[in-house]
Amino acid sequence: MTSGDILHMRRAIALAARGLGGTSPNPVVGCVILDPSGQVAGEGFHAYAGGPHAEVVALREAGERARGGTAYVTLEPCNHTGRTGPCSTALLEAGVARVVVAVSDPNPKAAGGAAVLRRHGVLVHEGVLTAEAEEVNAAWLTFVRARRPYVTWKFAATVDGRSAAEDGTSQWITSPEARADVHRLRAGSDAVVAGIGTVLADDPRLTARVPAPLRAAPVLRVVVDPGARTPAAARVLDAEAPTLVAVAEDATVPAHLSHQAVRLPRVPGGIDLHALMAELHGRQIVSVLIEGGPTLAGAFLREGLVDRVVGYLAPALLGAGAAALGPAGVSTISEIHRLEFAEVTPVGPDLKLVLRPKSSVDSTSSGPQSPKES
Amino acid sequence: MTSGDILHMRRAIALAARGLGGTSPNPVVGCVILDPSGQVAGEGFHAYAGGPHAEVVALREAGERARGGTAYVTLEPCNHTGRTGPCSTALLEAGVARVVVAVSDPNPKAAGGAAVLRRHGVLVHEGVLTAEAEEVNAAWLTFVRARRPYVTWKFAATVDGRSAAEDGTSQWITSPEARADVHRLRAGSDAVVAGIGTVLADDPRLTARVPAPLRAAPVLRVVVDPGARTPAAARVLDAEAPTLVAVAEDATVPAHLSHQAVRLPRVPGGIDLHALMAELHGRQIVSVLIEGGPTLAGAFLREGLVDRVVGYLAPALLGAGAAALGPAGVSTISEIHRLEFAEVTPVGPDLKLVLRPKSSVDSTSSGPQSPKES
Repeated sequence: MTSGDILHMRRAIALAARGLGGTSPNPVVGCVILDPSGQVAGEGFHAYAGGPHAEVVALREAGERARGGTAYVTLEPCNHTGRTGPCSTALLEAGVARVVVAVSDPNPKAAGGAAVLRRHGVLVHEGVLTAEAEEVNAAWLTFVRARRPYVTWKFAATVDGRSAAEDGTSQWITSPEARADVHRLRAGSDAVVAGIGTVLADDPRLTARVPAPLRAAPVLRVVVDPGARTPAAARVLDAEAPTLVAVAEDATVPAHLSHQAVRLPRVPGGIDLHALMAELHGRQIVSVLIEGGPTLAGAFLREGLVDRVVGYLAPALLGAGAAALGPAGVSTISEIHRLEFAEVTPVGPDLKLVLRPKSSVDSTSSGPQSPKES
Repeated sequence: MTSGDILHMRRAIALAARGLGGTSPNPVVGCVILDPSGQVAGEGFHAYAGGPHAEVVALREAGERARGGTAYVTLEPCNHTGRTGPCSTALLEAGVARVVVAVSDPNPKAAGGAAVLRRHGVLVHEGVLTAEAEEVNAAWLTFVRARRPYVTWKFAATVDGRSAAEDGTSQWITSPEARADVHRLRAGSDAVVAGIGTVLADDPRLTARVPAPLRAAPVLRVVVDPGARTPAAARVLDAEAPTLVAVAEDATVPAHLSHQAVRLPRVPGGIDLHALMAELHGRQIVSVLIEGGPTLAGAFLREGLVDRVVGYLAPALLGAGAAALGPAGVSTISEIHRLEFAEVTPVGPDLKLVLRPKSSVDSTSSGPQSPKES
């Protein structure tokens, strides 16, 4: 591994990041092609599901200059034929002599690209900038390895952790800039989840009011509603986006919810969130944003289902009123949920905090039916 | 005002800051002396009450080179004889031709230095980098103008605003690095204030366990204890530092508190914090640190007595347990206490937030009996 390898892979990771929010249920992938003299001949990234793969875009730009050259790819080139042909074949046909890979494909259906390339005499280096490349693909890797969506909990609060004043008023604690950022978060998620308490109290739309990236499907709205109480007139049921209402298996579902309702096992306090995650995984939902209520957020946290926390802190104090987070399974200090600050950035007058568990990508399992750029 | 003026005044402000924590009840002051050719000939700052003034230190270093030169001073040179002679006289005797001043002295007893210098033919420019120089002297300016100590409220909490778990355990939410920083905050304050609830629950020492700067007096410990309930064995009464116990005027004071107790007017919920501030002002306490209890912090905030908030946020979530801040006089969102982020810095794994009201220095009143480098 040379310093040039690191430089070009870092560029490939930056290219991959340009696809974030648009590629679900595929991963983001970036590719840089060098000609035999080491000059950059082509660049590409995967922009949307069904669109050309990163390698194909970069090879197209490089043309004949790719012959005898090097390809940097953030994820092991696929070896199966989905909507497009296998990228391993494309690299072989272009005559690339060396392929540098950051992350091996965790998906058995797509994997094997590196082996095929080696078998045809291509020099393959794996493991270059793996951690950085895993980070940009954290959502998809969680989806494939843990077989559930990548879960982000978003909250907005004062620095003393309150999301509303004593009388319930809360408009607006955070700034227009922070609220615009939340819409970008929504637009980059496959699904937005809220509890029935939030739906009844605030009647939110849960839509992203910013131009969405090119995506295979609009952002799915999900209401966690054990008792099937979502009113027919709720904004979350409007025609702007599809909606799923997760109800308990024994709930009496009113006619106006019959198309959206999905029945899930009941557990103390609500529905089984692991079952909800499995349901969403089956629907190709790679990433979800937990939007509201402190009770729902506490339940996700208690179940170990939060991969990322995004907090918007207003430079303000309330001293009373609803807490941003409800009971999360912690009764004594040794049970505290420990995370780490991944990003701290000003957003208008507010502060945006991104926190993650110390090890952000779960690598315990991998599933055969997860697609990769298919 | 030239760019050279700004450069040299900025240096003088940086010098002034080196005295922070040591000069009470005096201000911090920095001074830079240029020779007639514009070369830096001397620098100085006021390091501790009773020690030489910034101008005197800088003039001593400059010697004969000050004659015909320029002096940059962050605060108008004093014109009265305290423990040292007036600085205006020292500048005149050294033959300085021009004096540049950032902040005019708000203290009538010391003021007039600029007028005396002008009367003797010295060119005086006032108002250079005033805002920056006021910021470094915020505590002392509040002390002189508002006739009360500058109040900092410090808290440590999780990002969801909790300072203890549901069962009351709280050791340790923040890191050793954050706790060391708190000791530095204490050492730089003239007094540390806690409520009786904190004293009874945690039995804190409230001492600064870091080497203190050179200071006229050790950090005063103050307990807000309306009912005079501080136990004889409380650590806060040990011999490590002096302690003041603020009790209600009608409290029955036990013998073990007779030396430390000071009686103050009772108000609903406790004692009159404005009266406490006046008492501390009379004792030459320029800055206080509010350390404990959410209830006490809420009361200071409700009374408009918080000039700065320093929060240590741990990258952790609790979801239940004591809130960092108790009722602060806000019942609906329009009454929210709005501040602004002045500093955001990582401290170990934690985040240190410094917040201030939009206008941080109160300029409504000034008092005649406030000392200035006396």
